[in-house]
Parts: sequence; structure tokens; C-alpha cells
Amino acid sequence: MAAFPFEIEATDGKARTGVLKTPRGDIRTPAFMPVGTAATVKAMTVDQVKDTGADIILGNTYHLMLRPSAERVKRLGGLHKFMRWDKPILTDSGGFQVMSLSGISKLTEEAVTFSSHVDGSKHVLTPERSIEIQADLLGSDIVMQLDECVAWPAEEARARKGMELSARWAKRSKDAFGTRDTQVLFGIQQGSTFENLRRESSERLREIGFDGYAIGGLAVGEGHQAMCEVLDYAPGFLPEDRPRYLMGVGKPIDLVEAVARGVDMFDCVLPTRSGRHGQAWTWDGPINLKNAKYAEDETPLDPDSDCPASRDYSKAYLRHLFKAEEILGQVLLSWHNIAFFQALTAAMRAAIAEGRFEQFRRDFAARHLGG
Amino acid sequence: MAAFPFEIEATDGKARTGVLKTPRGDIRTPAFMPVGTAATVKAMTVDQVKDTGADIILGNTYHLMLRPSAERVKRLGGLHKFMRWDKPILTDSGGFQVMSLSGISKLTEEAVTFSSHVDGSKHVLTPERSIEIQADLLGSDIVMQLDECVAWPAEEARARKGMELSARWAKRSKDAFGTRDTQVLFGIQQGSTFENLRRESSERLREIGFDGYAIGGLAVGEGHQAMCEVLDYAPGFLPEDRPRYLMGVGKPIDLVEAVARGVDMFDCVLPTRSGRHGQAWTWDGPINLKNAKYAEDETPLDPDSDCPASRDYSKAYLRHLFKAEEILGQVLLSWHNIAFFQALTAAMRAAIAEGRFEQFRRDFAARHLGG
Repeated sequence: MAAFPFEIEATDGKARTGVLKTPRGDIRTPAFMPVGTAATVKAMTVDQVKDTGADIILGNTYHLMLRPSAERVKRLGGLHKFMRWDKPILTDSGGFQVMSLSGISKLTEEAVTFSSHVDGSKHVLTPERSIEIQADLLGSDIVMQLDECVAWPAEEARARKGMELSARWAKRSKDAFGTRDTQVLFGIQQGSTFENLRRESSERLREIGFDGYAIGGLAVGEGHQAMCEVLDYAPGFLPEDRPRYLMGVGKPIDLVEAVARGVDMFDCVLPTRSGRHGQAWTWDGPINLKNAKYAEDETPLDPDSDCPASRDYSKAYLRHLFKAEEILGQVLLSWHNIAFFQALTAAMRAAIAEGRFEQFRRDFAARHLGG
Repeated sequence: MAAFPFEIEATDGKARTGVLKTPRGDIRTPAFMPVGTAATVKAMTVDQVKDTGADIILGNTYHLMLRPSAERVKRLGGLHKFMRWDKPILTDSGGFQVMSLSGISKLTEEAVTFSSHVDGSKHVLTPERSIEIQADLLGSDIVMQLDECVAWPAEEARARKGMELSARWAKRSKDAFGTRDTQVLFGIQQGSTFENLRRESSERLREIGFDGYAIGGLAVGEGHQAMCEVLDYAPGFLPEDRPRYLMGVGKPIDLVEAVARGVDMFDCVLPTRSGRHGQAWTWDGPINLKNAKYAEDETPLDPDSDCPASRDYSKAYLRHLFKAEEILGQVLLSWHNIAFFQALTAAMRAAIAEGRFEQFRRDFAARHLGG
């Protein structure tokens, strides 16, 4: 009884393209979700984000529960109204940031306890509280279970411990979430780089039953090759008829290789973070606009793009903005990068629909990595 | 033989409203020119600037000659093309910033010598070089003469010295500029707070003959009251049939009081600078959005505005963005403030045209200063 229909319209090898239908609008897959950490996709207006073709954005539970607080967002009408984004929002569980950003954290069977990076205040996050924050207070459309993302590299025993805790928290999350008409819950597969653990994790999640399934614990330092090796088998352990979401990924080449292995959804801070630091992602690979060779380059980043930031401004001007440390440089390059990631997923969707994904994959790699 | 026709459509007391017609579009007066220091109105896209109703922006010769350099801007097609602003641009002469921002500067009859605040390199600016940079290299529509803006307070002898040098530089500027079909040159009245010097300065400028006249050397620390006292007489010394531009001004109340005294044009970094620091200018006065009282204030800054930044976002959200140090806060508040300054000049134009400027002036002061 999945609340959001997921219609797979075409497959090409393991790659799939389709639509996840939500009350707030369709999510075309493969989908890239721009990250709106603190109720803003950094340096962009929601209209700019929308114009890039993004169907859904991600919000971070950890940041929002600390500032302005989930209760305040609720009193202000929920996250969509607060930030003026009326399409779907996926929120993470807060677990990953608790472990990577916060002060000393204590992890028990019951909960994770941590100190705020904002003001040092102490907070407790349980699977149930994470559901309450995401589903009841922020009001997100796609809710993620709280999990433990084990650091890489991990011994198998440590990876198993994290996977098993995540599985028990998956059950508690599901019990707390129940069944809702307009919101769905995704479970998260863990198991580090161990195939047997990934399989066992998936079996436990399927037994509980979720509306979608994420692959967690990757893109944590293992590198592209090791990630691809896990993705050779990990998506296949998850139900074919539900969306598969690879969390925190990644570079354009990571997206293409993950789609080739059956992944449907992605999120990553890379395009906005790169954009704030002068790096533009293009079909021809990443370029650093601070480089002197762009000082009098009158060409835009992408003359064929519909995005004004990609199409209308010269590299020389963008470089000037970064050299002069002007905010507009960060605005335009974040905008361009998000537009590029959306163009990339759109191109993958078209290639899969037309049965030429393998050719696309080869051409993309040759051009993007060849420069 | 003024290159740009200036049509005064209505007067109300000393206040005037009209249109300065340029090949790149009409400038409705009273006009507020957003400052685009380094080829960008800070934190705003040109489309956002345009949407606020701005007919003209200002570019800073000092900043642009240092970075990316006037010659580079020229090679890239001029300032309009470089920054994608196709309406008129007024450039200042560079003199004011040389004296306020740069390293040790040497001022002689011939030139001002200074060190770049960017890299310490040494530069020489003459009246002729300033004209070359503005008119030939940047390609601005309204060019300002190089002048000496004497610091406040000044003894009369010192103020006279600066005024006389400015007058001689006015002549050199005019000789260098000559007469052009699509660009105009403005002279700058100096004389600090001395009526006799302001009169003499104006006489010298009128003798040379300019397409417009600026009032310089105000808003340099003398305060609103002292500035108004100078404005009681200074605009009247300038030709009635040409635009009068009060440089570097100011707060909304300064604009209203200057218009009441016959000023037509303004520029100031205040709206964008305030916006980057969490201060919003409104009909009810300035407000600091970081204040805790806005934490759950769901009202926008101005529900009646056409500007999305003013109309669509709650104060609570804007406050959150500033507390979280998000770039979008700076973007939205710069946008709102520029929109407010444009709305203010539009309201003054309408009030003058309808013969109710005195009433507008009283109502504005009561509401704006009363809060």
C-alpha cells in the first residue's frame, strides 16, 4: 500500500526512468535533489531552483531542529510554507549530521545524544523523535528513518553492529510513522562494503516494508571505484518496484554510474558548495573559474542551456566576480551547477527512455573525464 | 547642445519630476541609482535590479580600474556588456574612492597618485585619464568630472582650495570629453558648507557648461540637518533646466528632503549595504531583522510591493536566514531595499506630478520617523 505511486516508464539494462507521484507534484527519476540544508538551497531563490527543473529538494533535520527549531517551523506553517517551496521535500533523519557535525555524541540502543554546533546545547534524537520532527513538525513529503552511518573503513563486526542497529531503528521508525496518506517513509540499507551485510540489511527492511529504499553509508571516503563495486549488487537487493535513493551522492560521474546500476534518486551539496567556491560543473568536466585563463574568455559556461546563469554570463565576468569576492558570483555559479545537475538527470532520463543509455554513459565519460 | 534631453514634466515648490532621455532608455526623475561598485549591484542579478524599476545604475571607476581594469572591460565589450546591464550607467570619476579607500595618495595640480587597496600597486589618476576610463574604456552613459571632495569639517580656506582645484579639473575634464552624441558629462559643485563657495563653484561650472550638475562634498559626516541647510541654497545655484545629482545620498529621509529642495538624482550604497547586514528599509522606518521579535512574525516586509523579496517572504524566514548566515538573506534584503528606494522615488514622482508633494513629505516623515 505505497502512498506514492512509482511508475517505471522504461528500463535500459539496470537503468530505469519513471515518475514518483506525490500530492505536491511528480518527481521524475533519475532525480537529483538539491540540498536545502537550513531551509534554503544555499545562495539561490526557490524560483531559481525551480527554473532549473528540480522536482524535489532535500532539507536537513539536524540543522532545522537546532535552528530555527522544528517546533518553530511548525508554528510558522511547516517547512514548505516557511521557505516558499511548494513541491516535494525529502528530509533526512538527522543521524548523519549528528555524527559528522555535532559535538561529543553518545550512541545507545535507545537514542543518539549530541551537542549543537550552533550553541553547544544538548539534544537527544530517537527514531521516534526524528519521525516526529520530519513528518509532524517540518511536514516533509518523504521521511527518512534514523540510521547509523558507520565510518569508512570499518571492520565487518563494526559494520554489522551499525547495520543491525539501523535495522532495529527502521522498525521503530516504521511503527512511529504508521501509514499516512500524503507522506511516505524510506528505509535505509547499511552494511558498509560488505555484500552479505547489505543483503541482510535489505531483507530486514523489506520485511518491515517501506515506500522507498535508500542506500546509505556510501560516499564516505571509499572512493568512486569502491562505491561502484558496492553498487554492482546493493540496488539489486532492494525491491524493483520502489524508488532507490543513493544518499549524499555525488559527482556527475557517480550519478551516471549509479543510474547504470539501478539507482533512481540522489542528493548532494556538491553543486552548491562547488559553486560558492568558484568551481563549475560542465559536460566537459569541472572547471575552476578563478583560473587566469578565463580572464578574457567571453564564452558562457553553456550556450545551449536554458539557465540564465549558464547561458548569459561570460566566464570572464564570472571570474571577475570571484576575484572580487562578490556574492553574485556565488549566486550565479550555484545556479549554474544545480542547472547542470538537473540537465544531467534529464539527459539520463531521455537516454533510458530511448534505449541508448549505454551509449550516453560512454559518451558522457569520454567527454566529462577526457578534458 | 545637451546630448540628453531633460524634460521637466511637473514642479511642486522646488521639487521637480521629469525624464532624462538617453539612447539606452529614459531615466525618470527623481531617480535613485543603485550602486554597482565592481560591475555588480552587490548580491543582486541585473534582472532583479531591473525588476525593482531602476532606470540607471552607478559603476565605480576606482574599483573597476583596479579590477578587472578598464582596459580589460573595454576588451570585453564595455561595462554594459560585461555585466549584462543594457540601461544607462553613470560612472563616478574615481576621485572620492581614491581619497577614502586607497593607500597614501598624493594630490597635485596635475593628478592624484594612489596605491591600490587590492594589491598595493601604484596608480595615477588625472582628469583626462578619468574621462578616458569612463567614456572610452568602460563606456558609461553619464561621465563625472574628477574632483576633490574635501573632508568635513573644513576651514573655508581649505574648502576654497578644493573647490578651485575641482573647477580647474572641471575645465580639463570638459576639454578631454569634448562633445559626444551618446554620452554626457556632469560637472560637480564643491564648496563644503560655505554658501559663497558653492555659488562660485556653480558659476565656474556654468561657464564651462555641462549636461548635468552634481552636488558633491555632502553626506561626508556633516549630518542631515547641516546637509539640508546647504541644500536650501546649493541646487538653486545650478541651471534649472539640467538634472541635479546629489552624490552619495542617502537615507530615505535625505532623499525626500533633497527632492523638496530641487534635487533630481541620487546614488548610495545604503540599501545594498544595509541589506547585507540584516537591516530593511520600509515606509515605517528601518528595522533590524536580527531582532528576536521577528522570530515568528509571519508578515512580509511589504505586502503591497511588487517585489517578491518584499512581498513573499515572512520576516521570520528572513530573520532565520540572517541568524543562519545564509547568502539568500543578503540577496533578498538587498533586493527588498533597492525595491523600496525605487518605490520611494516613484511615490515622489507621482506626488510631484499631482501637486501634493508637500503632503507626501509630511506624511512620509510622520510615518517613517515616527515608529
